[in-house]
Amino acid sequence: MKGDRDKNVCLLVEYDGTDFAGFQKQPGKRTVQGTLERSLERLLGSAVKITGSGRTDAGVHALGQVANFHTSNPIPVERMPAALNKALPADIRVRRAWRVPERFNARKSAKWRTYRYVILAAAAGSAIVGRFSAIEPVALRVAAMREAARHLRGKHDYASFTTDRSGPTVRTVRRITVRKSGRFIFITLEADAFLRQMVRAVVAVLLRVGRGEMPPQEAAAVLAARDRRLAGRAAPACGLYLMGVRY
Amino acid sequence: MKGDRDKNVCLLVEYDGTDFAGFQKQPGKRTVQGTLERSLERLLGSAVKITGSGRTDAGVHALGQVANFHTSNPIPVERMPAALNKALPADIRVRRAWRVPERFNARKSAKWRTYRYVILAAAAGSAIVGRFSAIEPVALRVAAMREAARHLRGKHDYASFTTDRSGPTVRTVRRITVRKSGRFIFITLEADAFLRQMVRAVVAVLLRVGRGEMPPQEAAAVLAARDRRLAGRAAPACGLYLMGVRY
Repeated sequence: MKGDRDKNVCLLVEYDGTDFAGFQKQPGKRTVQGTLERSLERLLGSAVKITGSGRTDAGVHALGQVANFHTSNPIPVERMPAALNKALPADIRVRRAWRVPERFNARKSAKWRTYRYVILAAAAGSAIVGRFSAIEPVALRVAAMREAARHLRGKHDYASFTTDRSGPTVRTVRRITVRKSGRFIFITLEADAFLRQMVRAVVAVLLRVGRGEMPPQEAAAVLAARDRRLAGRAAPACGLYLMGVRY
Repeated sequence: MKGDRDKNVCLLVEYDGTDFAGFQKQPGKRTVQGTLERSLERLLGSAVKITGSGRTDAGVHALGQVANFHTSNPIPVERMPAALNKALPADIRVRRAWRVPERFNARKSAKWRTYRYVILAAAAGSAIVGRFSAIEPVALRVAAMREAARHLRGKHDYASFTTDRSGPTVRTVRRITVRKSGRFIFITLEADAFLRQMVRAVVAVLLRVGRGEMPPQEAAAVLAARDRRLAGRAAPACGLYLMGVRY
């Protein structure tokens, strides 16, 4: 039952996924949604249910997760980030809060989602970014990775890149870029929506190409096969970031 | 007493300074030097004293600290990083080890040292890089910071930028750059040597200029005054990285 003064509030949320069992609330587990809802309930004095743009898996980070919720509490929306950040643990920060139209839904209204995967070439690992990137002991062949990425772009059935076959598996990936900066490689994907573990399975294929274990054009064969076994084991969660969502 | 087979070994070391009381060994405290020496002693089976290129303060990070030590243990130098990294805590990584000439001394032989200071513009702080950068709630005026930096370059008496007046305070700073990348600002300094807390005091002045609290040309007056009180409180340790040392 929503009162006249009910408002729909959107949050831009950043989190370090390391110590969370993913975004989605699960009984008895520390989740981003559960932690956010608890802080919101304390601030607003009533039960709150937030809707995230999508579920990130355990260990996956976010710089630009978007979530919305309804409340009739009169606290000004612009004061919410500071109030929430005081109550939240340091591994979740609310970057912004703003009002959105009544029918806005962070998941259903999303048009494009962007994820980035961070790889550090470092035989010794890293004391600084060990929990924030995937470590590769050897240098990767970036040009080959870019060639493989071109085969995985477009509107396709991405069944080869997900463990979840419960629904349709056709998606539109409008961007896959591979950028090298010093010892880092950044793989960025933008799609209308992603299937479960899809980015990490795409990265797994690009990593095999980058290591010289697979020719770039074989990425097209993996895609065409619609067989999850071909992509290999998903790349580690710690390298993955939900960067942002377009509405 | 060094045997004929005594060798001088150099290490390239990365660390997350957050949980260390600085580089230099101190009784009863967790230090980088103490932790490294303990792992080396276990690996080599004898007492080891390492010499670092310089002391980093508590909370300061390093991507390229250089340290050397002498040993007569026959273990091949190229195997040392992997062996040490197995024994070391995750917040120290040995990136490389190589033999250096007998008279090489990581501190005395150093010609140029490079430090980088990382600032993130983020009103809410950051869940990801909160421990690896200084947070500024508002956007900084980068052009003004660059102008101020130009006044602080060169061979000068940097007494205004250190709390340690026990020795000479003239240094040659051959590079100060201010680079903006997205929400980050990177301030990089290269000098023949740095005084205690010098980088953080220089950054403190640049931050005041960037916030509009001080005109850029006043940086020259701060330098000329040789009075530590003018530079203001040192910028937080968590944004500072020892990037590398040239020999």
